[in-house]
Amino acid sequence: MLVSETKIRVCYDDTDQMGVVYYGVYPRFYEIGRTEMIRELGITYKEVEKQKIFLPAKSLNINYHKSAYYDDLLTVRTIVEKIPQVKFPIKTEIYNEAGELINSAEVVLAFFNGNTNKPCKAPDYFIDEMKKYF
Amino acid sequence: MLVSETKIRVCYDDTDQMGVVYYGVYPRFYEIGRTEMIRELGITYKEVEKQKIFLPAKSLNINYHKSAYYDDLLTVRTIVEKIPQVKFPIKTEIYNEAGELINSAEVVLAFFNGNTNKPCKAPDYFIDEMKKYF
Amino acid sequence: MLVSETKIRVCYDDTDQMGVVYYGVYPRFYEIGRTEMIRELGITYKEVEKQKIFLPAKSLNINYHKSAYYDDLLTVRTIVEKIPQVKFPIKTEIYNEAGELINSAEVVLAFFNGNTNKPCKAPDYFIDEMKKYF
Amino acid sequence: MLVSETKIRVCYDDTDQMGVVYYGVYPRFYEIGRTEMIRELGITYKEVEKQKIFLPAKSLNINYHKSAYYDDLLTVRTIVEKIPQVKFPIKTEIYNEAGELINSAEVVLAFFNGNTNKPCKAPDYFIDEMKKYF
Repeated sequence: MLVSETKIRVCYDDTDQMGVVYYGVYPRFYEIGRTEMIRELGITYKEVEKQKIFLPAKSLNINYHKSAYYDDLLTVRTIVEKIPQVKFPIKTEIYNEAGELINSAEVVLAFFNGNTNKPCKAPDYFIDEMKKYF
Repeated sequence: MLVSETKIRVCYDDTDQMGVVYYGVYPRFYEIGRTEMIRELGITYKEVEKQKIFLPAKSLNINYHKSAYYDDLLTVRTIVEKIPQVKFPIKTEIYNEAGELINSAEVVLAFFNGNTNKPCKAPDYFIDEMKKYF
Repeated sequence: MLVSETKIRVCYDDTDQMGVVYYGVYPRFYEIGRTEMIRELGITYKEVEKQKIFLPAKSLNINYHKSAYYDDLLTVRTIVEKIPQVKFPIKTEIYNEAGELINSAEVVLAFFNGNTNKPCKAPDYFIDEMKKYF
Repeated sequence: MLVSETKIRVCYDDTDQMGVVYYGVYPRFYEIGRTEMIRELGITYKEVEKQKIFLPAKSLNINYHKSAYYDDLLTVRTIVEKIPQVKFPIKTEIYNEAGELINSAEVVLAFFNGNTNKPCKAPDYFIDEMKKYF
């Protein structure tokens, strides 16, 4: 299992007039989390894209447990439970400074080849780096 | 059943460097759709909030079927299948100009009383307006 | 002089915990305004880009006169005072439902040729459509 | 003079289909920069707001010198040139990893008392912390 943690500071733009983080901001937090998870593999998603491999989202399920507030320093925990084939499911858990789980989500990405315009398997170098964690 | 349709023009800000609408923009589209749905009831969500009744999101499930592109005029179809109690599930379907279903989602909101700081039932005037559609 | 008006409904995402539209949302409003202004010329910015002509921003000056609020139906007035050469200055005035000027701005865009990677003059068909207003 | 530096990683959401950071994202970067600057004073803007003192923007001038790209690690340099009275002008310079100045801006905020609903002077404890830098 691959687990990666990163910190995100809630900024003013993230809040809405209910005084909490807007429900549509969380997908951005998941994206930041998985980008840092990939970076920890020694890869950057930026490089993956340069080889015309993209990772569009196919589905996203979010559970909002508690609110996040302005200036909170959130811990974003990104979890990969198995080595991806074409589909790449990634779980995210977000914790506040009190250590409470405030949000949990699962996104399913899919590897997509921009040259063939078709779904494809994860690149070998990607799998090789992941295997070190499984 | 209550069904409401509204149009949304994709703006440049909504796109990302993959050349499509960013996966995290869709929750905003759902929000616009349900706001217009409530307006069609003869109510505005703004007025609801003035009475200290809020509608935070509890969960959100999204399926991304096809991409949306810059300047697309999307049709956002908002669907309420039953009269809400405390929980308020709302479905959204988004269609492109070719009439293709590109995105479908279900958000579950919950009525919340800002005076008591507790979940609450939907206000009577809200239920009364909804009943006309069921 | 070319003047175009479009309406924008403030959505929940646009607000922050101060209970007003976040100061960084306005550039999006200007973009929507100028996109509709170009559409009134019988052109779409989407088509312009397909010909590898882009319009990046070079500068932006904003004056915030009054706040905008959730669910406001704003009038965005987009003004072009002279036919563009390479630089394309565009003014925007935003009015609330009481007719008050709440925000004024000037963005300077520049025509840029993606094939030559250099600034360029506005395309002839663009100028021709604009000339009808001057 | 008070100078503060913070790093911001460009995320996918920040990009648009031109392949660069959207022109309307920069105000968010300035906000993150000045929030960290205030934190370095030993104050948080969150605490300032709890005392019903707000800092809405009155004007914003931006110059876009070069593009920022996905995954860039930007350096945001926030500069206060004099101790604020009612108005609080703040300059921001943004540098890319090559050390190039890609964006410069000046925002003018104004201290505002939410109890009296009027502009007000900067709180004494705020001025006292700033004086250490002048």
